[in-house]
Amino acid sequence: MTYTAPLADMRFALREVAGMARVAALPGYEHATEDTVDAVLEEAAKLAGNGLAPLNRDGDKVGAKLENGVVRTAPGFTGIYREFVDGGWNSLPFDPEFGGQGMPWLLAATVQEMWQAANMGFGLVLLLNQGAIDAIHHHGSAEQKAAYLPKMISGEWTGTMNLTEPQAGSDLAQLRTRAVKDGDHYLISGQKIFITYGEHDLTENIVHLVLARTPDAPPGVRGISLFIVPKFLPTADGKPGKRNDLRCVSLEHKLGIHASPTCVMSFGDDGGAVGYLVGEEGRGLSYMFTMMNNARLSVGIQGLAIAERAYQQASAFAKTRVQSKDDGSPQPQPVSIVHHADVRRMLMSMRAQIEAMRALGYYTAAGIDGALRQPDKEAARRTQDRVDLLIPIVKAWFTDLGNEIASTGVQVHGGMGFIEETGAAQHLRDARILPIYEGTNGIQARDLVGRKIAKDGGETMQGLIAEMRATAEEMKSAPGDDLAAIRAGVVAAADALEDATEWVAESVKGALVNALAGSAPFLRLAGTALGGWLLARSAHVAQGKLASRDGDPKFLEAKLVTARFYAEVILPPALAQLGPLKAAGRTVFALAEEQL
Amino acid sequence: MTYTAPLADMRFALREVAGMARVAALPGYEHATEDTVDAVLEEAAKLAGNGLAPLNRDGDKVGAKLENGVVRTAPGFTGIYREFVDGGWNSLPFDPEFGGQGMPWLLAATVQEMWQAANMGFGLVLLLNQGAIDAIHHHGSAEQKAAYLPKMISGEWTGTMNLTEPQAGSDLAQLRTRAVKDGDHYLISGQKIFITYGEHDLTENIVHLVLARTPDAPPGVRGISLFIVPKFLPTADGKPGKRNDLRCVSLEHKLGIHASPTCVMSFGDDGGAVGYLVGEEGRGLSYMFTMMNNARLSVGIQGLAIAERAYQQASAFAKTRVQSKDDGSPQPQPVSIVHHADVRRMLMSMRAQIEAMRALGYYTAAGIDGALRQPDKEAARRTQDRVDLLIPIVKAWFTDLGNEIASTGVQVHGGMGFIEETGAAQHLRDARILPIYEGTNGIQARDLVGRKIAKDGGETMQGLIAEMRATAEEMKSAPGDDLAAIRAGVVAAADALEDATEWVAESVKGALVNALAGSAPFLRLAGTALGGWLLARSAHVAQGKLASRDGDPKFLEAKLVTARFYAEVILPPALAQLGPLKAAGRTVFALAEEQL
Repeated sequence: MTYTAPLADMRFALREVAGMARVAALPGYEHATEDTVDAVLEEAAKLAGNGLAPLNRDGDKVGAKLENGVVRTAPGFTGIYREFVDGGWNSLPFDPEFGGQGMPWLLAATVQEMWQAANMGFGLVLLLNQGAIDAIHHHGSAEQKAAYLPKMISGEWTGTMNLTEPQAGSDLAQLRTRAVKDGDHYLISGQKIFITYGEHDLTENIVHLVLARTPDAPPGVRGISLFIVPKFLPTADGKPGKRNDLRCVSLEHKLGIHASPTCVMSFGDDGGAVGYLVGEEGRGLSYMFTMMNNARLSVGIQGLAIAERAYQQASAFAKTRVQSKDDGSPQPQPVSIVHHADVRRMLMSMRAQIEAMRALGYYTAAGIDGALRQPDKEAARRTQDRVDLLIPIVKAWFTDLGNEIASTGVQVHGGMGFIEETGAAQHLRDARILPIYEGTNGIQARDLVGRKIAKDGGETMQGLIAEMRATAEEMKSAPGDDLAAIRAGVVAAADALEDATEWVAESVKGALVNALAGSAPFLRLAGTALGGWLLARSAHVAQGKLASRDGDPKFLEAKLVTARFYAEVILPPALAQLGPLKAAGRTVFALAEEQL
Repeated sequence: MTYTAPLADMRFALREVAGMARVAALPGYEHATEDTVDAVLEEAAKLAGNGLAPLNRDGDKVGAKLENGVVRTAPGFTGIYREFVDGGWNSLPFDPEFGGQGMPWLLAATVQEMWQAANMGFGLVLLLNQGAIDAIHHHGSAEQKAAYLPKMISGEWTGTMNLTEPQAGSDLAQLRTRAVKDGDHYLISGQKIFITYGEHDLTENIVHLVLARTPDAPPGVRGISLFIVPKFLPTADGKPGKRNDLRCVSLEHKLGIHASPTCVMSFGDDGGAVGYLVGEEGRGLSYMFTMMNNARLSVGIQGLAIAERAYQQASAFAKTRVQSKDDGSPQPQPVSIVHHADVRRMLMSMRAQIEAMRALGYYTAAGIDGALRQPDKEAARRTQDRVDLLIPIVKAWFTDLGNEIASTGVQVHGGMGFIEETGAAQHLRDARILPIYEGTNGIQARDLVGRKIAKDGGETMQGLIAEMRATAEEMKSAPGDDLAAIRAGVVAAADALEDATEWVAESVKGALVNALAGSAPFLRLAGTALGGWLLARSAHVAQGKLASRDGDPKFLEAKLVTARFYAEVILPPALAQLGPLKAAGRTVFALAEEQL
């Protein structure tokens, strides 16, 4: 039940797939030198492995507790959080003007993977804070930025996102929390649910970002505004002052992430919580969209992270659990189960898909940096389009895989996997939230098809497909069976994705419901295809390095093997979603509601 | 969180797919008239829905508790168990000579689906008892049968299976529990783990069947014998007498099935537990194999059952949860989420796969009856071969689907699915044991490839494929788009399964490791293909009944829709396992252990 950050794999994906050197060359990232990046990764790996990972099991078992309105976090959390603040870990990607280190999002995503793998229940407080910082940074006034960002970026205070209400989940247009103007501020009243780290004992203050409706505002999403509602109103000298009229009423009893307090928050029981408008009235939801890409990338990274954690545990178990003889050997003695073909198949499928996710996740993170800092505006816009297209894929595909891989991790353990003490089951329970929060995976598929493909008729996706074909072309002369098989996979993936994209782009115009019926299988196909492409690029790079004796041959050879396994075993069923995605619309509504 | 047995679907699968009338015509089943079968189904549905289902949530929340060596079952369990005994529900398929009702296994499987869907934690006590009865019935002496079977068949006593030890899970050859002859009995000592209902307060006695090793027995499986080790030694007049030297040391803390006490059992702490040899020394494991088909079918049925339960809950939620507007309508008002295409796709995929499982499960149960009672010995043998082939598919495919469908059930609920009070998460937690116990699904895939296909070079599977083609042939003249699409699915399924079977049959001869590497994808392909075939038969029957106005048209039309959805959406990715199952062997062992 330990976690060791897979630094070699991370560095390879960072450098060879995501292009860390190109990112570091962007204006403003000059300080992200290779040495600095390496040092950050090394130190983060230590903190994740030695600090966070050992607290994960108790975080699950003991969890966060609400007592007399106070949430006590799991054992060890206040201490390790202090280490985060003292080490400056919260501040990595943020604006140096407010105390941030201004490091690339690519590096932040890599480090994020470590936190989330080591301890997802803890990692969530970092993730929510990141979202709140983003929102204030993009849309807050100069005074708001000055008052809140330094504290939040240092991690002395944390931020939360208060969106959901019982009747308003995926459909925020239905929200009812009210905000009434009262001098220089507003008075907020209403109840919010599913508020992650809505209350805790890690910091002296908590900065709630709350979506609420002003009186006489139009119905629907245009009536929603965004407010800063701090737990303690900051004094003029930046200390937590008067207690605000808000409280955590209860904690949800959840399947997983027990260490992360999921609060029911009540605002304004005593007349109204003081809230400060962010930006303009009526634009709350559009402000939320600004930070959505970063938040959804982070949740995707959580899917990758929990998969890596489950893989490490399953692999370690398979190497030590002795059971049954080796089929490939005449020896009758039982051997460790890693010698059995089906156990290997499970481990290889975990590993290959994890590498594919890591490649696509880091690639997308590098895109966020490129879109932010490329001097060529037109190139930056194109990169942003690409990021916008990839985000729903990263969020949904990674989190579906996170669940499947965590479940495979349980399976590798046999009967021990079902026993909570083993720890494999926790990863499955923790993973199960990922396809749900930050926009369900159904919402992601809808976003991919109904917005991202619809927006440009599939042009951005066709740009990626062209790059897939270019990779296949470059690989034509590469030697060996492995690269030939991998290349064939890329070609098949490009063909299927092109066909599917054309169909979707056409369908969203005239038969939206058909496109939506096929949206989830389309997303699955797209994710698997793009992951296969980046693994092929990895394998091609690895083969080049092998030829020039540049690096550890065992490590490089493994890249060829996992990419080939992926091409031959993982890709085909996903590409066979081409038929289903087109066909689903024919039958999904063929039954009346009462026939279901 | 209720459960209503889907009687119309069950009856249709029973009659039209499994051929209840043909089963009832077998010698010895004359009393299984249509009226009797109907009455059994109706009464079982009431007991499942009104009696068992309401206890499911507390069974999970409170669970079974061990206190001072006594296991207290979950709230309401002793009362409902009494109803089972009084109603004679345990005795349904067993030998009338010992108080059984001698009903077909097909009917027992149908009723089993209800118990397991209503309350899997409770249902396990029935399932384990069934296995123990089978073992004594097949291999016990006349005295043993007389002493134990009437009590176990009535349910006054329950049976358990004591196989696993810490070092002996899938590999029972490693077991160490000792049995030393001592006059007319043996003294048993050792520790067993994962013993389902190894201790409980439902009955006055518990009959443990224990695998143990006699001194000087050969190593490996041939040294293992089977013993009856009752908690209380029966007196001459059949009452529980002297307490035996065995006890439940602890209960496991598990991911799910909390109501089912999973015991660590210690035998012989005070000198040795009295055990009575079943059959001959050294044949314990082969006796276990006798009852394996029934036990594995039952676990498969559990997979189907939990999927049905999850589907009912998801469908009910989707019809009441209002969120977002209808894409197919100009109305701006939010609608219940069952109007959204991706939610429909999820519900349809649950439903279609459940119907496919039910068809294949009941078909296999009917095969058990046919193999037992067909007068033509040659036909009975062929039927037995078919059952033997189908059992690993039913066990593994159903239980994998049970997990996937329970997970989809959580997803349909959105955020509420992650909250334990909702109940959707319990189904997922409960389902997770199914691919593990009674032979992991990896073991099932190995059995399918290494024994069942290897045994006859795939001939039995080719017999099923011939029937698939015959169904496709019969459907040639059937009218309508639906049946044409369904028929195309059957043809594609037969083609892929034939190709795969030939490859596997060839590979097990020369390259067993390759066949094993592809065994799980092969099983997936086979299950999905066979399920599609039986759904096609259902649809064809339904279309005939529609044409002749025989039955509820809404119900019959739905059979066409689900079969078409299955053919067009579910089948293609599973058939695309053809490439992967052949390719997996190339890479699964390409990494050295230290590269994993």
